[in-house]
Order: sequence, then C-alpha cells, then structure tokens
Amino acid sequence: MSAARPTTRLVASLPPTVPFVAPEALERKRGERLDLRIGANESAFGPSPRALATMRTELERSSWYGDPESYELRAALALQLGVALESIVVGAGIDDLLGLTVRAFLEREDVAVTSLGAYPTFNYHVTGYGGRLEFVPYRDDANDLQALAEAARRHNARLLYLANPDNPTGSWHDAPAITALLEALPEQTLLILDEAYAEFAPGRMLALDAGDPRVIRMRTFSKAYGMAGLRIGYAVATPETIAAFERIRLHFGVSRVAQCGALAALHDRGFLESVIDEVARGREEYSALAAALGLKALPSATNFVAIDLGSPERARATMDALLARRVFVRMPGVAPLDRCVRVTVGTAAERRRFTHVFKTLLG
Amino acid sequence: MSAARPTTRLVASLPPTVPFVAPEALERKRGERLDLRIGANESAFGPSPRALATMRTELERSSWYGDPESYELRAALALQLGVALESIVVGAGIDDLLGLTVRAFLEREDVAVTSLGAYPTFNYHVTGYGGRLEFVPYRDDANDLQALAEAARRHNARLLYLANPDNPTGSWHDAPAITALLEALPEQTLLILDEAYAEFAPGRMLALDAGDPRVIRMRTFSKAYGMAGLRIGYAVATPETIAAFERIRLHFGVSRVAQCGALAALHDRGFLESVIDEVARGREEYSALAAALGLKALPSATNFVAIDLGSPERARATMDALLARRVFVRMPGVAPLDRCVRVTVGTAAERRRFTHVFKTLLG
Repeated sequence: MSAARPTTRLVASLPPTVPFVAPEALERKRGERLDLRIGANESAFGPSPRALATMRTELERSSWYGDPESYELRAALALQLGVALESIVVGAGIDDLLGLTVRAFLEREDVAVTSLGAYPTFNYHVTGYGGRLEFVPYRDDANDLQALAEAARRHNARLLYLANPDNPTGSWHDAPAITALLEALPEQTLLILDEAYAEFAPGRMLALDAGDPRVIRMRTFSKAYGMAGLRIGYAVATPETIAAFERIRLHFGVSRVAQCGALAALHDRGFLESVIDEVARGREEYSALAAALGLKALPSATNFVAIDLGSPERARATMDALLARRVFVRMPGVAPLDRCVRVTVGTAAERRRFTHVFKTLLG
Repeated sequence: MSAARPTTRLVASLPPTVPFVAPEALERKRGERLDLRIGANESAFGPSPRALATMRTELERSSWYGDPESYELRAALALQLGVALESIVVGAGIDDLLGLTVRAFLEREDVAVTSLGAYPTFNYHVTGYGGRLEFVPYRDDANDLQALAEAARRHNARLLYLANPDNPTGSWHDAPAITALLEALPEQTLLILDEAYAEFAPGRMLALDAGDPRVIRMRTFSKAYGMAGLRIGYAVATPETIAAFERIRLHFGVSRVAQCGALAALHDRGFLESVIDEVARGREEYSALAAALGLKALPSATNFVAIDLGSPERARATMDALLARRVFVRMPGVAPLDRCVRVTVGTAAERRRFTHVFKTLLG
C-alpha cells in the first residue's frame, strides 16, 4: 500500500486545535443534554417570524443553488446602509469573511495584531494562512486602542483586528475613539472592525464610510437577527477592497434559505428592535444579579454579560458547577479576563432559571 | 485620504473571473424570469419530503450554531458507508471541500492535473492558492485516464482531479478502470474523485476504501438528494488525510438546517430511489429526442445529458435560442465538448416543455 500523501509544509506545521468546543461536544462528553444554552451568544429570540415564514416557503426550492452574487440581499443592504452594491460582500458568517480577509491581505510571515484573548477564530485563520500574530493585552477590561495602534506600527502589521462591541468583554468604543485609532494606524494596516454585536451597541458608534480604505466592517445575521445556524454575514469596505474577495471566495458558499431569510429579516425592523430591547433588559437583570451577590458585571453593549468572579480559579469552578447543572456558559481563556464567566442573555424564563442556579451556587 | 491596502501578491495576480454565471445573473441581464431552469444540474425533484419536514421544524432553532463536528450526520454516513467517523469530513458542498483539499495538499507552484473542460471550480481553487494547472484533453468524450496518469507522472503532480461520473460529459469509469488509474499514479499524487453524481451511476463503480491514502472521495447532497441550495457535502479518505481538514476548515461553515436535512434525507432511501429512477427515464427521453432530430446524445450516468449539435457554432446558437425562449441550459466551454449543450433532467412536465421548444428550434 502507498504512503500517506503529505500536506503542505504550512498545514503540517499547524496545531490540531479548534477555535471552540461546541455545546454538542459537551453533551456527547457528558452523556446528557444541556438544559440552558447561554454560552455561545446565540440569540434566545430566534429569527424574525417574517424571516421564518419566508424560509419555510423557500425550503421547497432548496434544490436550486443560491444566487452566487447574493444580489437581492446586497441591494437591500446597500439601500439600508447607504453604500454602493460594490462595497458589500456576503459570506457564510463573519468567520468566513475573516478567513478571506486574511487570505487576501496577509502575506505569509506578515503580522496581524489583535488583543490577547480576543476572538480565537481570527487567530485560527492568521495561523492557518501562515501569518504571525502579535497580541496586545486588554486594559481595564477593554481593547487598548492606543497600544493596538502602537503594536501595528512596531510590527509593520498588515491587519489589525478589533471587535467593537467587543467579545468576550462586552466593552465598546465610540466614534471619536475609533476615528482616533484610524488616524494612528500606519499606512499599510487594514483595520478589521468586527461588528457582530453592532445592533446592540448604544449610539455614537462609528458611521459607515465605504470610501475609507483603512477599514473593513463585518456584520452578521448571527446575533441580533438570531440566524447563527444559517451562516450568513457581510462585509462593507471600498469597492477595491471588496474586489479582492471576488477572486477567492466560495461563490456558492452561502445557502439559498439563508439569503432569503436574511432579506426578510432586514425588513422586519420591529422584531429586531424588540430583541434589542429585551436584550437590554436581560443585561440589566444580570448586572443586578451580580450586584446582589457582591460581584461585578462588566458593562456590555452586546447580548452577553461577563460576570467578574474575582479569580480564574473561582471563574472556572463556577463554569464547571454551572455545567454540572446542565447550564452552558463560557469563560475567557486568558488573563486578565479569565476571572469572568460570560453569560448570554436568554429569554425571561431562561434568565429566571439562570438566576436561580447562579444564586444557589454563589449566594 | 489613505491609499488602498494592497492585497497579497498572489491575490493581486488572480483574474477577476468567476467559475459560473448564475441563472439569476442571466435573469437580471435579460430583464425577465427564466421559465425552465435546466442548466445547472439541480435536481428537479427537490429534497426528500422527510428532509423538508425536518428542516421546517429545525428552522425554529436557526439561532443555534450547527454542530461544528457534524457528528450525527457523520455517524450516520459512517454506518451507511462502512467507514470510521474519522474518515469523513463534512463541508459546505464539494466546492468547499475542493478548496480545502487544494489548500492542504498543493504547495504553491506545484501541479494539479485535470481534464481540459472539466469542473471549473477546481481550477479556480488551484489558481487561487497559487498552484499550476496541467490539462489533459478529453478523449472520445470521456476523461482519458491513461493520459491523466501520464500527465501526473510527467509534471510530478500533487493532485489529480477526476469527476466520476463526469461533468460535463456524463461519462463514467467502472471500478477496474479507476483501480488501474490508481495503480498508474505516481507515489506523490492524491487522486480527488469527485463523485457528485455517484448515486446516478450504474453498478460496478469503485467501492469505498477509506484505507487507501491515494484517493479522496467527494460526495454531495446537491444532486440526487436535491439540496444544492443548502450547501452540504462530504469527503471520505484515510483518517490522516481527513485530519488535514480539521486544521484549516471553517468549523462553523455548514448550516444547522443543512445538517438536519441531510441526516433526514439519508434515511429516506425510497425517495432517493424514486429520483434515480425518474432521472433514468428522463435521460432516455432526452436521448430519444436527440435521435428523433438526427442528433446524438452522449451516454450519461448523471442527472443531465450532453446533446451533440455537431459544431460549437450550432451548439452556441442553440443555447442562445433556448435562452431567448427562457430555457436555461449550459454548454461546455472548450473543444471538443463545445459542440454540445448540456441539459439537466427535469420533471416530466419540464421535459415535455423542453422537448417542445427543442423540436421547434431544431425540428
């Protein structure tokens, strides 16, 4: 029999790690179902009823490929965002778009800068395409914009990743802060603004400017729109930046049902606003719960709250104890954030259940 | 204002072409809807009713990410195919898996061999990852296995792509022929067997052997299962080969609804067999239609038939005339196949409509 075919040297050098352990893997390992799934910042409120109705109908046509240009969705987004169609690319979620951005803009051995403990899937792509990562520690439980810009200059970075609002802290930076960051960037750095949680953020966020070559904005239907399982998101940038995606993206990578669902969801503003309101209520409940237990909750502009347990040991013990009670939450992997557990806002019933379990553990 | 951020040298060198012009793009260009969509080898028979029912229910849970391991689907496939779980990877269709295979196994400047006029998305990935393509002409309207093996040896190829059954000819090779090809391959070549149309093929196809490091088999739910729009397929190979995918694939790239639908579809053998039977009837009708018009239809083991018009000019004129009557078909792009139009088997009603239009044009 023949020998195994060798992978490329780069792929052979990669670690066999995965960005996340899924709740399903936890269930298989533990041999029981989770009772409360509030660990992956999935929306507790599902897709818009209008999107669901559209998708149910469109399923019948699932034997047709989706439109590789996602034309109708992009046209609707262009109208809503006030940008040109050529400034938008649709992908199978921000994960997909991050991978394409790394592939398109980061030469091997070039540097990408990110915060230490930020979104691991960005790091997975940088490593996977042979780039080098430089990390900047969080400061006061938020991204340290000045230090990120300094690191970009020092390392001659091609990419700078920033989630705004941030995951896993929930923190956010307003328009003047991001504008100052853009001004401080070296000429060769492309800022990836991961705005997965943008809909939950307060006002004064950076306005979209699809004419600015320094930045690419990434948005998703996974969070406020409640469509994580359908894998659809988009990026907004200059037409020149977006053109790079056309040369390498999977043209038939987005499902037809997701395209139709996202389009319908965009037109259901009322549902979106009800989700945003309910999530704000949930965040306040979690903060009040933390305070009642003598704990601090980090301020959040997202659909989750990081609750500060004071030490990594206590955070891990709490996460494990929650899991033993079939409550799935996650915790940041590195200091100084690893003293927190990160809890997604659930429905009112889910929040009551979490409150009960959490008080039982820590009260 | 800043300058545009440069892409990598490789991406800058890529042509802005796309593998396919979609029927939706034709509709936008022509300003009218297509009446008969039989150009992309989509199933006319849709997904299994059982899969549809499952997916309709599961849509409600679309706010949950899919299982990144596609565990339940892989377990069902492993059982059905008689291979280990570790020999299967699930992706967003064969297109996705082809891209990952190229990325994992083809160093830049290394050679991939394929037939001239075969599936363009494979070529798109090879070029996109900086590989070199070497082409072998079709011979007697089928892949020339001996010449492919010779080209692999001559160019020290890392990858050899073969669709079996083939697109766009519809031809196929039985087990002894593929076994002989494997024996003739040089030690470093990985054979990609694209088996998108495997379910339509007659008996005597190569049995699955997940212990053979010389080959990776690719299958899809896009064709016989009627789920092209849902983007789900899988590859079967040795655990070592599959392990390479774990290091680079988009772990959350497949939609939850597709995972659930594919699992349900696997268990609806009756529906699958009815599709296969009806497609066989349709192929016979198309062959009879061609014969009645004094034309030849290429033998096909797929869900489409390539009808030989005798010359590229006549083939193109026929395709354009069909399009003018709102009938979408495609034709191969290069000689000697570009004397054909490729027609997907439709429902009985669609076949009647095609027969009528085709006879009007050519009778």
